[in-house]
Amino acid sequence: MNPSEIHYQKIHELSKHRRILEGVVSLLNWDQETYMPPEGAGIRAEQLGVMAGIIHREKTGPKFAKALSKLIDLPSGKLLSKRLSQQQNAALREWHRDYVHDTALPTKFVEEYTKITSQALMVWRTAKSDDAFHQFLPFLDRIVILNRRKAEYLKYKDHPYDALLDEYEPEMKTKDVEQLFTKLRNTLIPLIKKAAKRKINDDFLFGKWSDSKQIAFSFKILDAMGYDKNKGRIDFSSHPFSSSCHPNDSRVTTRIHEDSLMSNIFVILHEGGHSLYEMGLPIDQYGTPLGEARSLGIHESQSRWWETYIGMSKPFWQYFLPQLQSLFKGKLSDISLEQFYRAINIVEPSLVRVEADELTYPMHIILRFELEKALIEGSLSVRDLPEVWNEKMSKYLGITPKTNREGCLQDIHWAMGAFGYFPTYTLGNLYAAHLFEAFAHQHPDWKHRVAAGELSFIREWLHDKIYQYGRRYSTKELLKKATGTPFTADAYLSYLQDKYTSL
Amino acid sequence: MNPSEIHYQKIHELSKHRRILEGVVSLLNWDQETYMPPEGAGIRAEQLGVMAGIIHREKTGPKFAKALSKLIDLPSGKLLSKRLSQQQNAALREWHRDYVHDTALPTKFVEEYTKITSQALMVWRTAKSDDAFHQFLPFLDRIVILNRRKAEYLKYKDHPYDALLDEYEPEMKTKDVEQLFTKLRNTLIPLIKKAAKRKINDDFLFGKWSDSKQIAFSFKILDAMGYDKNKGRIDFSSHPFSSSCHPNDSRVTTRIHEDSLMSNIFVILHEGGHSLYEMGLPIDQYGTPLGEARSLGIHESQSRWWETYIGMSKPFWQYFLPQLQSLFKGKLSDISLEQFYRAINIVEPSLVRVEADELTYPMHIILRFELEKALIEGSLSVRDLPEVWNEKMSKYLGITPKTNREGCLQDIHWAMGAFGYFPTYTLGNLYAAHLFEAFAHQHPDWKHRVAAGELSFIREWLHDKIYQYGRRYSTKELLKKATGTPFTADAYLSYLQDKYTSL
Repeated sequence: MNPSEIHYQKIHELSKHRRILEGVVSLLNWDQETYMPPEGAGIRAEQLGVMAGIIHREKTGPKFAKALSKLIDLPSGKLLSKRLSQQQNAALREWHRDYVHDTALPTKFVEEYTKITSQALMVWRTAKSDDAFHQFLPFLDRIVILNRRKAEYLKYKDHPYDALLDEYEPEMKTKDVEQLFTKLRNTLIPLIKKAAKRKINDDFLFGKWSDSKQIAFSFKILDAMGYDKNKGRIDFSSHPFSSSCHPNDSRVTTRIHEDSLMSNIFVILHEGGHSLYEMGLPIDQYGTPLGEARSLGIHESQSRWWETYIGMSKPFWQYFLPQLQSLFKGKLSDISLEQFYRAINIVEPSLVRVEADELTYPMHIILRFELEKALIEGSLSVRDLPEVWNEKMSKYLGITPKTNREGCLQDIHWAMGAFGYFPTYTLGNLYAAHLFEAFAHQHPDWKHRVAAGELSFIREWLHDKIYQYGRRYSTKELLKKATGTPFTADAYLSYLQDKYTSL
Repeated sequence: MNPSEIHYQKIHELSKHRRILEGVVSLLNWDQETYMPPEGAGIRAEQLGVMAGIIHREKTGPKFAKALSKLIDLPSGKLLSKRLSQQQNAALREWHRDYVHDTALPTKFVEEYTKITSQALMVWRTAKSDDAFHQFLPFLDRIVILNRRKAEYLKYKDHPYDALLDEYEPEMKTKDVEQLFTKLRNTLIPLIKKAAKRKINDDFLFGKWSDSKQIAFSFKILDAMGYDKNKGRIDFSSHPFSSSCHPNDSRVTTRIHEDSLMSNIFVILHEGGHSLYEMGLPIDQYGTPLGEARSLGIHESQSRWWETYIGMSKPFWQYFLPQLQSLFKGKLSDISLEQFYRAINIVEPSLVRVEADELTYPMHIILRFELEKALIEGSLSVRDLPEVWNEKMSKYLGITPKTNREGCLQDIHWAMGAFGYFPTYTLGNLYAAHLFEAFAHQHPDWKHRVAAGELSFIREWLHDKIYQYGRRYSTKELLKKATGTPFTADAYLSYLQDKYTSL
């Protein structure tokens, strides 16, 4: 082994140690949302705090810096050895990126940030339930100021929001998001108006659907997707999520509404998509950045892929509707595929993001992006947020919240201090569409195969194009490599146009 | 605050940090036995290894030693400050005890020990299922030798087994266990012979008992015991256990056999007893030894208390049998309290410890104690273990294993390297009897109250006498303080005599 290899192994070893601890944190979080007794919340917070402290020290301590500096110049990011593989160089670049980010924020700042956001979370909960924005206002004000300072620490060229966005979607710029979202908004507004006018009956999706049958169906879907039950499981939580500490332990949660058939099904497709990505990451790269998911946007592209491009498609239900009909004997038996397909794709502008349909969802994100960008650059003051929120809702979706609870207080993100996160939801849609176009081109028979219940070739395609690389390539490179063409919004726009004008 | 107080707080802070990490390990273990996907085993082992490493470094590192040495002389254990409370001095003595133990074993030795026992565990599993003692023999040989070396490192006065015992039951000596167990053996052998001859019908305890009703009954019992559902939960695992990371998060597991009514009930009483102890430890002492359980023997006294002294008593079933009858409509309706009581207290010598009844169980422990003591002192060689095991089984219980699987390969403990652990099971019975005698004396009406379904005064008594003190007093002091009389085997012997001659 050459000395560079030895240095590389040392970095990998230290990084793996930390990754293992991060996996432990995943389990603590998973348990907190699934099984933890209510009174356990206090000690759980302490456990998470202690673990975060240990992980932070390992990330920013001299041991890791010393190991890393053997192979990459820390100030400039220049690679110092010519004897490593391209893969290894890619890992080093990502380690360096993380290191720069992890050490950019002074400990004092992180402590203040943690303190304010943890207070803000509590205040937000009460403020939301009391519909009392004025309670939350001073905390949000403080969080905006802290996020501006954070942007200064993290550094940026053009816009302070760039620095915040970069945390969740590396290398994505504010102006790129702006361009993408402007195009999208201009396409969506007329489409939504038209679609919302249609009278479609979806009454038959409601009623009473047995919990145990809903769960049985969830396993059927995950099974078809190629989700390995020996490496995962389904549990229940009030907010569904996926949680992975290793490709061999990647779990999903769902919630069952007995009165609504589709809620759990879409959750399972969505979280299953996230979980398959984690299961497919290369095990031999566990502990290096190449064993980690590329970005939040790419992660979301994987969940949206299964939820919308597959799970809301006609071929999927050509196979699964008869399965549903036979599982829930007597129900749905007089519903045609066409009726079902139209019902699950109903468009209806609504106030709450997490309940939005495929077509209106991006408008919720665009609105949040515009507002948080304005807050960060200072062109909007927190005081005016409720009013501007409501104006935009009227303009974009034609409805106006009557309360702030259904308006600017609805999401947890800002209370957590997560500015720059929202755009990744819609970037995920855009990426997924771009990928799906290439997939459909390479598999012109995909509809036939899916209609025959075959889904595993889809997972294999995603494995081949996305999963196996982890963070080896940048998002742009990855999308280009997977599809052969540079990423644009075009695929998404024409997908929406085609689908929602023909519905 | 005087300087001693400041030093004390520093020790508490470091110790609490470590305790929090130990709580995280509890959750990892809990999840491993309850929900972890099978393929997650590999990464879980790595997580446990990393956590153990961090905890070991915190225990034995210079930071803790330096803090501790401000208030107690590390070589001699002499307290250095006169300005602390008796409680604080007790905590310091226990911290010192732990420190001496934690630093007694050289890292190299611990690594070898861990390696051998982890191999031995795998070999033992196969050897047990193949009934092939010769496969396990070289590993057990090695483990015995390592345990002798361990005893040397830990130091002892009279017998190397003292050092091993001391790990699980502090300050208990081999010769004391020998005396207790000899008396017990002499009482048990004739009692078992007589009891086993009785023909008692317990057929009605078998059959088909719905899982969900069994669980409902479990909650009923825990509820009556005063187990706080907001601080705990019931899950399933193949080997039941209780798991606690804090008084506010203390969980139990059980297993349900649909064909056997009593199995789950006794598990719930047993694990519930363990869990109540953990829930009752003083929260303000969390992070000091006074917030921890006294010893394995005292822990077991708490589980046995509820399982046998309460759960196998007539007053308990005077209240709960009608509940069972109404829950399982139609079943048990023609069974009298007397019949039920005799059936659940049936005595039947059997080969497997974990399936043994109240009267024969201690004989299994006495046998193991005698054998492991002989192995450690070298008066028995591992090669001869199966033969001597079988001889003792014939002598003590009148039955002889046909396979080593049902003989000396049945337990996991030796493969794990746990020599000195077994006696604590029976010490728990002895302690519980001693405590119960005092309890019955102080509450002469206990049978009436229990027969009326009142159990919480029992938990209160245990809280008052045991829970609240953690490790403040030694086991002997604790038992004396709780009962007013020094601990002997007398209470247990007369309890068994009275119960099993009158049955």
